[in-house]
Amino acid sequence: MSDSFSVKSNIRDYYHVQFLDDLQGQLSALGEQENVIFIIDKNVHALFPEVFAIIKNSRLVLIDPSEKFKTIDYSQEIIRELINVQVRKNDILVAMGGGITQDIVAFISSILFRGVEWRFFPTTLLAQCDSCIGSKSSINFDQFKNLLGTFNPPSEIFIYLGFLTTLSESEIRSGIGEMLHYFFTKGIDQAQEIADNFDKLLVDRSMLKPFISESLRIKKEIIEKDEFDTSIRHIFNYGHTFGHAIEALTDYKIPHGQAISIGMDLANYISFTRGMITIEQFDEMHSILKRNIPPFNLTKDNINQYFLALSKDKKNKGVLLGCILTSGAGKVEKIFLNLDDSLKSVMLSYSDTYLVK
Amino acid sequence: MSDSFSVKSNIRDYYHVQFLDDLQGQLSALGEQENVIFIIDKNVHALFPEVFAIIKNSRLVLIDPSEKFKTIDYSQEIIRELINVQVRKNDILVAMGGGITQDIVAFISSILFRGVEWRFFPTTLLAQCDSCIGSKSSINFDQFKNLLGTFNPPSEIFIYLGFLTTLSESEIRSGIGEMLHYFFTKGIDQAQEIADNFDKLLVDRSMLKPFISESLRIKKEIIEKDEFDTSIRHIFNYGHTFGHAIEALTDYKIPHGQAISIGMDLANYISFTRGMITIEQFDEMHSILKRNIPPFNLTKDNINQYFLALSKDKKNKGVLLGCILTSGAGKVEKIFLNLDDSLKSVMLSYSDTYLVK
Repeated sequence: MSDSFSVKSNIRDYYHVQFLDDLQGQLSALGEQENVIFIIDKNVHALFPEVFAIIKNSRLVLIDPSEKFKTIDYSQEIIRELINVQVRKNDILVAMGGGITQDIVAFISSILFRGVEWRFFPTTLLAQCDSCIGSKSSINFDQFKNLLGTFNPPSEIFIYLGFLTTLSESEIRSGIGEMLHYFFTKGIDQAQEIADNFDKLLVDRSMLKPFISESLRIKKEIIEKDEFDTSIRHIFNYGHTFGHAIEALTDYKIPHGQAISIGMDLANYISFTRGMITIEQFDEMHSILKRNIPPFNLTKDNINQYFLALSKDKKNKGVLLGCILTSGAGKVEKIFLNLDDSLKSVMLSYSDTYLVK
Repeated sequence: MSDSFSVKSNIRDYYHVQFLDDLQGQLSALGEQENVIFIIDKNVHALFPEVFAIIKNSRLVLIDPSEKFKTIDYSQEIIRELINVQVRKNDILVAMGGGITQDIVAFISSILFRGVEWRFFPTTLLAQCDSCIGSKSSINFDQFKNLLGTFNPPSEIFIYLGFLTTLSESEIRSGIGEMLHYFFTKGIDQAQEIADNFDKLLVDRSMLKPFISESLRIKKEIIEKDEFDTSIRHIFNYGHTFGHAIEALTDYKIPHGQAISIGMDLANYISFTRGMITIEQFDEMHSILKRNIPPFNLTKDNINQYFLALSKDKKNKGVLLGCILTSGAGKVEKIFLNLDDSLKSVMLSYSDTYLVK
């Protein structure tokens, strides 16, 4: 994939992604436009004072990107700040930050003046390799995670790898989990390459570029066919159904991409017990995934709570758990599972054998 | 136009409108579907106990449709009530009520689970002849009217004329104002027919059907070309720019359709002073519009406040007021006006000569 490409969309025909070498040049060009309002993650803004000096005369709103602010109420606060800088219908909101900044700005762009244009500079690996394309925004509501949201892609996405140097190892691991999930829907080679270079990737973040590019290529192929997630895009729930419930169980202390690394491993193990793959196939994928799996265990003490979290998944059909299993790397498929005692035993046995105690 | 037709849309290909004879039959069919949740204007629900007896076992949320509740906060309350009746992604929200009910349900349908299907039974003349098609939802934000919203048409619209019998004369007049505005974008004949039958229409509401049908036909023709209101749909701001500011000035005591009747008359007068129409043309349209114009005056005491309201119109371009004027019935065009003293004089002179003191 070249350094720029377009994604076909039902919402705005095409939107564009480009890898950026000259961040300041791009910011400066945008900052000169009267109809641009920057909405920037306050932590990112603090980390790059010399970069943002160039837009200091522009209209600017800083955003506090914590999960507890991914709400309608906080979105209303940001709308008030936009009104303070005289937002108009023809303005362009330029967001810079990670997934939460993306969620809030995409959501606001959907409902302000019945829709305003927005552009996005993703600053985390997760946002660069995954969420920046795909059109989804997600907003929490009361105790319900991601209950609200819209489909509303930015018109332009600028990926600047320099942002990755400021991320913690945990944030890199989180992004790597998401990339592994894309790679495993296509085969094993790219995932193996991640595993082979794992330690180097954590340190030299510029090495991540081809993997980011490949993740986006795999995602683009599917979302262009099913932007609204009604059919084939479901394959990207691979690892996610089990991973989301791990996040809920651990109060989001395990980063998303690491939770879905466990989720994929668990999905693979269930696939093995159902005869969909051999133990050798499981082991091969496990040897890759375990590089990215943090301390976590399913036990008799938490398995019921884990099942409760699984039972609340939006993709369920009545009492059946809708999840993606595998018949081998590159071959994922949607299966409905009974949340019964035999599944509990399988999960406990998986944890006992494969997760670090 | 026959008793049913479809509207082409960018959002859901087509949506469907049908005039309904058998309200109970339709409700009963919907009520039998497990995935239907009714969201009904509480006043309408109280007025037709025998009608709603048929859906008493269905999932039901009542809505309080006052302008002060057309907010994100009240939308959140309704979402909580939907959660109480176990709303799921595949449910269909069936709204019944006027424009405010429509706004709230359309808005919620846009953001809940990134979009759920909704259907609509408009119960006011304004909603039946105008707002039920066109995809717009509008939500007030702080002191800003209709600042938020989305484009999200219902999948099905059911127009039942029986609802009109419960409306006040003022509500019928409001709908008539909106219909006159559609008719004047096409010519003078239909508007003249309204004027010729004005008193009868206020009493025998079944006579309104062909006018409702014709309004929707005119609107359909334009919104199919410009659903997102970026070009030709602007002609429907005829009477609205001046009317909205009258509503703001009078604290919304003058019903919408009557305010835009004054708004059209004022737009016509300004068109006359600019040489776009003759005084005879103005008089001919005025003789129709005056049937629907309530007591209101522009005076030295309120003209500055009126200008302030006009200056806040979203369609303005810098300091220029974007509005629709006429070069004769059926010929409307967008003009930008200076909000200066000479325009003030024209407006005061119009009020002095043509509005009832």
